[in-house]
Amino acid sequence: MAEAMVLCRVPRWSVGLWASPGWWRTTCTLRALVRPKRGPGCPGGASGPLACSMFSKVSSCTPEVMLTQERYPVQRLPFSVVSEEDLAAFERLVPGRVVTDPEELEVSNVDWLRTARGCSKVLLRPRTSEEVSRILRYCHERNLAVNPQGGNTGLVGGSVPVFDEIILSTALMNQVTSFNSVSGILTCQAGCVLEGLSRYVQERDFVMPLDLGAKGSCHIGGNVATNAGGLRFLRYGSLHGTVLGLEVVLADGTVLDCLTSLRKDNTGYDLKQLFIGSEGTLGVITAVSILCPPRPKAVNVAFLDLDTGSDLEMSMLARLARCFLESNLASCPGFAEVLQTFSTCRGMLGEILSAFEFMDAECMQLVQQHLHLASPVQESAFYLLVETSGSSTGHDAEKLGCFLEQVLGSGLVTDGTVATDESKAQALWALRERITEALSRDGYVYKYDVSLPVERLYDLVTDLRARLGSQARRVVGYGHLGDGNLHLNVTVDAFSAALLDTLEPYVYAWTAGQRGSVSAEHGLGFRKRDALRYSKPPPAVQLMQQLKALLDPKGILNPYKLLPTQA
Amino acid sequence: MAEAMVLCRVPRWSVGLWASPGWWRTTCTLRALVRPKRGPGCPGGASGPLACSMFSKVSSCTPEVMLTQERYPVQRLPFSVVSEEDLAAFERLVPGRVVTDPEELEVSNVDWLRTARGCSKVLLRPRTSEEVSRILRYCHERNLAVNPQGGNTGLVGGSVPVFDEIILSTALMNQVTSFNSVSGILTCQAGCVLEGLSRYVQERDFVMPLDLGAKGSCHIGGNVATNAGGLRFLRYGSLHGTVLGLEVVLADGTVLDCLTSLRKDNTGYDLKQLFIGSEGTLGVITAVSILCPPRPKAVNVAFLDLDTGSDLEMSMLARLARCFLESNLASCPGFAEVLQTFSTCRGMLGEILSAFEFMDAECMQLVQQHLHLASPVQESAFYLLVETSGSSTGHDAEKLGCFLEQVLGSGLVTDGTVATDESKAQALWALRERITEALSRDGYVYKYDVSLPVERLYDLVTDLRARLGSQARRVVGYGHLGDGNLHLNVTVDAFSAALLDTLEPYVYAWTAGQRGSVSAEHGLGFRKRDALRYSKPPPAVQLMQQLKALLDPKGILNPYKLLPTQA
Repeated sequence: MAEAMVLCRVPRWSVGLWASPGWWRTTCTLRALVRPKRGPGCPGGASGPLACSMFSKVSSCTPEVMLTQERYPVQRLPFSVVSEEDLAAFERLVPGRVVTDPEELEVSNVDWLRTARGCSKVLLRPRTSEEVSRILRYCHERNLAVNPQGGNTGLVGGSVPVFDEIILSTALMNQVTSFNSVSGILTCQAGCVLEGLSRYVQERDFVMPLDLGAKGSCHIGGNVATNAGGLRFLRYGSLHGTVLGLEVVLADGTVLDCLTSLRKDNTGYDLKQLFIGSEGTLGVITAVSILCPPRPKAVNVAFLDLDTGSDLEMSMLARLARCFLESNLASCPGFAEVLQTFSTCRGMLGEILSAFEFMDAECMQLVQQHLHLASPVQESAFYLLVETSGSSTGHDAEKLGCFLEQVLGSGLVTDGTVATDESKAQALWALRERITEALSRDGYVYKYDVSLPVERLYDLVTDLRARLGSQARRVVGYGHLGDGNLHLNVTVDAFSAALLDTLEPYVYAWTAGQRGSVSAEHGLGFRKRDALRYSKPPPAVQLMQQLKALLDPKGILNPYKLLPTQA
Repeated sequence: MAEAMVLCRVPRWSVGLWASPGWWRTTCTLRALVRPKRGPGCPGGASGPLACSMFSKVSSCTPEVMLTQERYPVQRLPFSVVSEEDLAAFERLVPGRVVTDPEELEVSNVDWLRTARGCSKVLLRPRTSEEVSRILRYCHERNLAVNPQGGNTGLVGGSVPVFDEIILSTALMNQVTSFNSVSGILTCQAGCVLEGLSRYVQERDFVMPLDLGAKGSCHIGGNVATNAGGLRFLRYGSLHGTVLGLEVVLADGTVLDCLTSLRKDNTGYDLKQLFIGSEGTLGVITAVSILCPPRPKAVNVAFLDLDTGSDLEMSMLARLARCFLESNLASCPGFAEVLQTFSTCRGMLGEILSAFEFMDAECMQLVQQHLHLASPVQESAFYLLVETSGSSTGHDAEKLGCFLEQVLGSGLVTDGTVATDESKAQALWALRERITEALSRDGYVYKYDVSLPVERLYDLVTDLRARLGSQARRVVGYGHLGDGNLHLNVTVDAFSAALLDTLEPYVYAWTAGQRGSVSAEHGLGFRKRDALRYSKPPPAVQLMQQLKALLDPKGILNPYKLLPTQA
């Protein structure tokens, strides 16, 4: 609760610096914990993912959220209903950690986007995997459905109950078990907050291999369960490679101990991989072992201190500085040049390249119009943001200089600027990071997060722009080009079901036509589960259903999520 | 066959440069293809993994290998026996690619270590996944067991039949499907030889994320099926992270198409992970999509050209040069210093560190005694080999210089040398790479390949040395310290069953006591399958068996492998 109080000071932060969804989530969630007065009044109501203005009126952003079972066509499965006897049993299993207060439950029943709302009557806070095991064994016997929940920062409705599932929170499972300062291998409980872990390993000269906007509230167990991507993906790769071990409690309470701390282990099937990205539907992750890379020496690292407001501001600056030892926002004449610049960049920056982001002209117009940010470069069709991080300031600067000389000299890039101090770096990052905020001020937003072959990445934007014509206010594209990950957004005056029908399944089918992914990093959760078939063929979907049946025969774990509605 | 003829010239190569098992495998296998006269006469007979002298007498290294079913206590499972009707059916499925000639089959019935030998009567050479699908559908209906086989370079008897399983070779599935020169994503059939792929992507300014001694003959499908580690593991990580997609044919012939070429894809369970490291027991991998990193610019890269002898020698030198932009063999006073040096190294070399190998004093004595190699440094308890590769020769040299100054100045390291030219680099690598060869000349060798927490890595060697006393000639330890991977070897005058009983399960139990892995990178195959329980708890083994039953209910895929003998 102390943390919640501190985080409530967030409105003092300069608007948009923390435009990433997770940060806002932190403030909204924790305000709810201290029970703010709720009421209507958010522009756009509760009709869409960014229906409430995320950044301008934080204090009034608390509209009532419609129950998921009322908004969506979904039928409750025949699980048991939690009885007084069950509550008494839970009290014996986790004494003093059975939450039934409706207001406290509200925070965990509603997702961050405020478009999904369950009606769970009980939340449990185990501290150990043994307690999780006892809870699941009980629920399995009683046929009670369970919704595992970490930081509840997911964007697809996967982290909250759909009906009255019991919420199993990992919040109190927040202990670091061990850290090996030679190998950089961290072992911890699933409920450790990513930011806390980041701070912990950075003090020991390592970094976490993943970093997210939501780091202040997301749990490492949730990160693994949703196979989170994030800001360091380009450099350190997928959690499938960096997670070395997991402890998982299966639906029937069996503890599956695959919590080894070894880089190499070829003894049998790599079971832990099954649970990475399974969104809590195959088991509850209770502990994680993860490989942390050495901290890049050339980067001035500071940690976010939540104790005081002034510390917050200092550490915000430092955090942005972390991202910007060197940065470059360059404007490119066309998408072919964007791709060629990326190739050159990979070749010349090699091992120090840590981000390669792009945004189109519409994005730049949005941040200029709504947020009054100034472009540091000439007007262009595309803009790029390149980040490096390495072990030598001088070497990295020299490499980046050579790269810029090459792309500017060859005409690939028409203009560019390099941040030489933290505030300039911060300003450049803001142009990219505040697009989400600018979009939310442009009207109702239809949002898609897809993976595509990099050479077709922008074609979907162009195609959709032509298809929608005057039906859309704007069709914009930006994202992690280095990862082939496009954020596609369509803004309109107000939500329209007709436009939704024009967009879906068209966007999914288009993506499928390129063998893309309809969910690059957000997962399927509740809302996208029926889009699965656009990215996976029937035999794959069938095998997924068989795996679910094998591991959770009663289907009690996070029901109504990930797998498509049964025909 | 043309390739085979060229590779038969190998004896002209200077002894030991290609001391890694895979290279020798290439020569032996392909000599067999051209049907050399076989006979007894290898020192040590067929009694152990390195029973025949690997490098000194290549031409006479062809002793008869005992049948697996005679050497080991194993019972044939009740699969059907291949009939004339089956052969006729196969001929219809893969016309002209049904091999029944006993001499041709011999090569595929015997493993590289020459300690496992099946008696398969038929080998099939499909060209497409559709053909694999038809073959498996047929075998599934007929209850015929199948042994998938790539380059047959495995070290645990996993790649050859135990009884009369049909050998399903991927050798003719050797086409590159696509390469994206922006993203570096390669898609190819499973039978592509790693070295060919390496050459292919290097011509396009990328490198394969894995490199093995066996690269000249191992198949990429086999690499993925066995989750191969190898020389680039420290830098580019596990195949679980770099493999982006797989096409797999299941036991019943179903084609599971998960062959996406996307860095990010969070749509449902990541099914491909199941097959990485499953050693052909869950499905036959027919195509692979893999992420290739940009080629380090500072490294002079050349490819092995097999066309002429002189080219071979040139390219050998170049290949070694590739590994040795900078190299350092440093002697350390004790293992605590080895660990501290590793920490310093990771910190100071950061993103350019690509190998950190260690060897003990016994190893140095072995290569000096048997191979007459000279140590470039003072006598010491431990020796280290550090390799860097990056995008700038000057920057990398400067970083390495600073690191050496630090560790020599602080007394962590007592002596060191840096290779300034290719031949010196080559000589330094030889000290590490020729240990296997030197061991084989020291007598009978008991070999173990384990993963341990890095701080306990050498304790097993010390412990075993004390335990064995005069029973062993030598107990030596070396390996990939950066990966926590120890190669533990015990040499004696001649094989002794009593000593084997002293070693096993002691080594496995010791490893288990440290939560280590009894097989770091070689897998379990046939020979180590019963050691699985030392690294995985009963619920994990049970889940593996359930997965096997789900995916291959008749158990026809690579039977007698990976999973322990049923009680």
